[in-house]
Amino acid sequence: MNHTITFTTSDGKTVTASALTGTLVSDAAQQAGIEITQPCGGQGRCGRCAIQITGGNVRRRSTLRLSQEAVEQGYALACQSVIEGDASILVPEQEKIERNLTTDRVAAEVSVPSGYDINWSQTVRRVNVRMNEPSMDDQTDDWARLQTALRVQHKLETVEASISLLRRLGQVLRDGNWEVNVIYELKNLDNHSAAHIIDVRPSICDEDEPIYAAAIDIGTTTVSLWLVDLVTGQVKAQVAEYNDQIVRGEDVISRIIYASKHGGSDDLQHRVVGTINKLGETACKRLKTRPDQIVKAIIAGNSTMIHLLLGIPAASIRLAPFITAVNHPPLMAAREMGLHFCPDAVVDCLPGVASYVGADITAGVLSNGMDDTDEITLFIDVGTNGEIVLGNRDWLMTCACSAGPAFEGAGVKDGMRATTGAIEEVWINGDTYEPSIRVIGGSKPRGVCGSGLISLIAEMFLTGILDKAGNVNLSLPTKRVRATDQGGEYVIAWADETSHGHDIAITRVDVDNLLRAKAAIYAGFTILAEQVGMTLADVETMVIGGSFGKYVNVEKAMQIGLLPDMPWDKFKFLGNTSVKGAYFALVDTRQRERISEIASRMTYLELSADNTFYDAFTSALFLPHTDMDKFPTVAEALLSKEKR
Amino acid sequence: MNHTITFTTSDGKTVTASALTGTLVSDAAQQAGIEITQPCGGQGRCGRCAIQITGGNVRRRSTLRLSQEAVEQGYALACQSVIEGDASILVPEQEKIERNLTTDRVAAEVSVPSGYDINWSQTVRRVNVRMNEPSMDDQTDDWARLQTALRVQHKLETVEASISLLRRLGQVLRDGNWEVNVIYELKNLDNHSAAHIIDVRPSICDEDEPIYAAAIDIGTTTVSLWLVDLVTGQVKAQVAEYNDQIVRGEDVISRIIYASKHGGSDDLQHRVVGTINKLGETACKRLKTRPDQIVKAIIAGNSTMIHLLLGIPAASIRLAPFITAVNHPPLMAAREMGLHFCPDAVVDCLPGVASYVGADITAGVLSNGMDDTDEITLFIDVGTNGEIVLGNRDWLMTCACSAGPAFEGAGVKDGMRATTGAIEEVWINGDTYEPSIRVIGGSKPRGVCGSGLISLIAEMFLTGILDKAGNVNLSLPTKRVRATDQGGEYVIAWADETSHGHDIAITRVDVDNLLRAKAAIYAGFTILAEQVGMTLADVETMVIGGSFGKYVNVEKAMQIGLLPDMPWDKFKFLGNTSVKGAYFALVDTRQRERISEIASRMTYLELSADNTFYDAFTSALFLPHTDMDKFPTVAEALLSKEKR
Repeated sequence: MNHTITFTTSDGKTVTASALTGTLVSDAAQQAGIEITQPCGGQGRCGRCAIQITGGNVRRRSTLRLSQEAVEQGYALACQSVIEGDASILVPEQEKIERNLTTDRVAAEVSVPSGYDINWSQTVRRVNVRMNEPSMDDQTDDWARLQTALRVQHKLETVEASISLLRRLGQVLRDGNWEVNVIYELKNLDNHSAAHIIDVRPSICDEDEPIYAAAIDIGTTTVSLWLVDLVTGQVKAQVAEYNDQIVRGEDVISRIIYASKHGGSDDLQHRVVGTINKLGETACKRLKTRPDQIVKAIIAGNSTMIHLLLGIPAASIRLAPFITAVNHPPLMAAREMGLHFCPDAVVDCLPGVASYVGADITAGVLSNGMDDTDEITLFIDVGTNGEIVLGNRDWLMTCACSAGPAFEGAGVKDGMRATTGAIEEVWINGDTYEPSIRVIGGSKPRGVCGSGLISLIAEMFLTGILDKAGNVNLSLPTKRVRATDQGGEYVIAWADETSHGHDIAITRVDVDNLLRAKAAIYAGFTILAEQVGMTLADVETMVIGGSFGKYVNVEKAMQIGLLPDMPWDKFKFLGNTSVKGAYFALVDTRQRERISEIASRMTYLELSADNTFYDAFTSALFLPHTDMDKFPTVAEALLSKEKR
Repeated sequence: MNHTITFTTSDGKTVTASALTGTLVSDAAQQAGIEITQPCGGQGRCGRCAIQITGGNVRRRSTLRLSQEAVEQGYALACQSVIEGDASILVPEQEKIERNLTTDRVAAEVSVPSGYDINWSQTVRRVNVRMNEPSMDDQTDDWARLQTALRVQHKLETVEASISLLRRLGQVLRDGNWEVNVIYELKNLDNHSAAHIIDVRPSICDEDEPIYAAAIDIGTTTVSLWLVDLVTGQVKAQVAEYNDQIVRGEDVISRIIYASKHGGSDDLQHRVVGTINKLGETACKRLKTRPDQIVKAIIAGNSTMIHLLLGIPAASIRLAPFITAVNHPPLMAAREMGLHFCPDAVVDCLPGVASYVGADITAGVLSNGMDDTDEITLFIDVGTNGEIVLGNRDWLMTCACSAGPAFEGAGVKDGMRATTGAIEEVWINGDTYEPSIRVIGGSKPRGVCGSGLISLIAEMFLTGILDKAGNVNLSLPTKRVRATDQGGEYVIAWADETSHGHDIAITRVDVDNLLRAKAAIYAGFTILAEQVGMTLADVETMVIGGSFGKYVNVEKAMQIGLLPDMPWDKFKFLGNTSVKGAYFALVDTRQRERISEIASRMTYLELSADNTFYDAFTSALFLPHTDMDKFPTVAEALLSKEKR
């Protein structure tokens, strides 16, 4: 039976939808064009898709994440409630996904590889071709005419083209009056006579006119795109944007679950393709060019992101024994993927290693160079997940820590993503226990993001608000610590200081979640080292990718035992090593080949199958660790605090 | 402005459509789901899309093909009339496109090449593959697992798969419990270690289970499909069907014009793909299998048909200097073309030579073997067009005669396609001038089809009703010859003998059209021979493809000068040489390579650029020819008739 559902949004708009009995409220809203954020992918786990039923017939299948009070006020989870009759529904303001991501100028640290020469470094070529006009005496077909001209004028013996290109070839040749420029990709760098045509354009072209290509990293949270000129090898624009899949789940597991639902896979694919298209447009607009001028893209990303991008079922990634469908995806054309680049732009998704060690990590290893050094290097990429690689020129060992998105604010009562209103850094006065905070956007705070949580836990620990086990010391002389039915908590901001008028606090349960996340990562370090008969002290270089070092205070991360305690000069912070690796692969085909070698060289260790993991994990569930000898710097800091 | 159009069809159905001012009646009808046949592709040339306006506001842009009387009765051409207000339209019964095409058993003449062995003759392979189930100790990705198994168990070093196949691979491997059968195509017959996967099926398979493939010929009028079992090399079913594009034009020129209109190209592509899908279904049903079991198809057809199939603009084929976009199309996957075969079935469109000598002719040359004999061979394929090849092992010369579809009944007042009600053979009594006729389907006649026209002209000539120049002898003692304002005519059937109640007659204008068509073909023979310094007498073998010899009486064709006058033992009738060539290429990859060689060896002669063509054409405009010495057999027949 069909029912009429009236949705009213926080800005007062009213939309009426028609839905059958049994339709999920979230689906009905989607059909009506109303976005309801589902950070857990519609599992009823996160409670963040709550809507308010103001009238009518809606059945709540689960209210697990709603308080009794909220239920009494009519709240229901959109992903867990079904339509059973006409209904009126109030949709509260949805968490906005916005932040000033790197839309800045090209980062200084990215420099063109030395000795860069488009013709010797990589496989994309552009040539001018002049042909004789067909006549009754020369009725050669268009395609053969172009092939012959390429052979005679540019020594290309074998050229291929897609049917899509052949469909428009005749018009282009005539538009250009038989003078065109042809962009093609060589089969490989060692054979300059076999190629695949990417584009034919109806004019003659200057040699120094840019040839655009894109290096892309698809993060679970953020997608980054670098627009590169292959003629000079330079990065011409860097843009980033939240992955539009976020509204369908904040972590890879939620996304995989959502993808397994009817239509979910298509939805997620369209969303990430849409994000990339948006980024391409933004970058191109800045350079006064068009996305259809992008002739090649190299894409890095974790295995789930690559599967979802390509529309490959990802369900087996989630379930033991955690198998990917494809670690080395085939080359594709942009048009096959819905990317608004040049239709035959070559899209090359970099190879991954395993379900939880993907192409973002192989690209990261390339860009930090650990596969080509004698120094024992430990590389961690802390994004939505934590992946670790240990090794050097001779061996590479890797594992993934299912840290979960706690450091992105999930699973924490007042946690939130790093958007406007998030507390991103906290300092606590050791005498008064009063905090100082820095809020993104400078406004009143709404919650605490990952970097804020790390500095908060570190400060609470160093000032004695938390003990080694993460218990809140309720005996301190401050109102900010108080008991609740969920254990002790510490108030970071009072209701009148916040934007929503409620206290912002961190509870014992939150601390536990954070401890589990950091313990998972630290245990990963330990196990990897143990596997090769080493300790973390043997590590000569510690490379950190991701937002650490940029947004996260590494000293604090060390103080809570998230990162190992090492001398400062061993640390290197490289930012987004994934997109950087894609960039290197784009401008230097040998580096692209090197990523495939890296992928096949890396030995993957499945932590959940490792018997020693649980011990290492439990030992790391303390601040900073059960074994204080592993954290001499932190021990010293505690000592100096006590002395003071 | 929107108007309401009411269509009433001959079976009394009434459909209402809404159309804007300026909409063509044919387009409005199409939108309303009413088929109006447009044999000339909507050019207003053929007059066969006439409909009757019974009320309202329709403007006739052209009434060239309608009599004054018809216009007065409200008739208008659907393709040349536009809606200007509400209207009521009567749609007469449309010419039905039906005939018992070859749905018979497999023709005896098709035999499997001697020494056929699936593994040495062609490139499609099927193997069983058994894999270990993934586990925590072996987390290899699905695709690499299959690749490794193929390498270890079947020595395949390099295998590729489309993203579409990779998307369903995981499910198939699990459905088959890690035992599957894999169908792949080798890159070439000389390298058994590199392949492209076509299909993976979730079970182990017996060696003698069929592997289905299709040989297809796309004719302008008829599409033929042979379903082949690659395991035995046998043809298992032969089916044929009118090309569903016919309603959009009877000849290639009309189709090209229609394709250039908005949406025309897509429409024609869907129609021919639909025809192939229908044939695939019919053939598969007969063998109790499904079209998705067809793993490869080789397609022959004239250049226009191949362009339209692939959605490649064909406009330049029609206009001087008559250039095709692509003579050697790339391989495609069935799913890319909308064919309901196995999604990754390899579709190989054979190479053509020029705009009017296509893959049907290169395939025909292969199947008649003239490229591999010492004997001077003349090959003519009479379909909707006439293409001629002259040559042998050492040289091959070809040209196309724009005969037009006169022999398919177009351009002839009472002409029609070879469907039910068509007079297909005529005998005329030399004393009484009374005809005997044979009608397709055995019912009362409606018109005369190609084979009927040929025998009619021949009989009229031999009995003296027509003179050498094609004039009707009005002085004969029979009512069947009579004068009209269009010259003399001969009545083949009186009104009361026909199904529509009008006389069926052939006029002087009709005869002229037929003479022009046959003269074009004969001039082609002459010019080709002259080009190499020969006469037709030097020809050692005359190979005839197409319906000639099957439906057409060759003696009569010779008597009117359509075919050269040669001893009977020089003639060979091979039927559809095009689909036969595709079949040979399918079961023997060396033959496929040979077709490419044939295409590149053939020298194309553009008749419209040849100065001597017009002389040859004019000389052939007589019955059988100005030079009677060229037709000794016919001269003898005339003599014996006169003597009698």
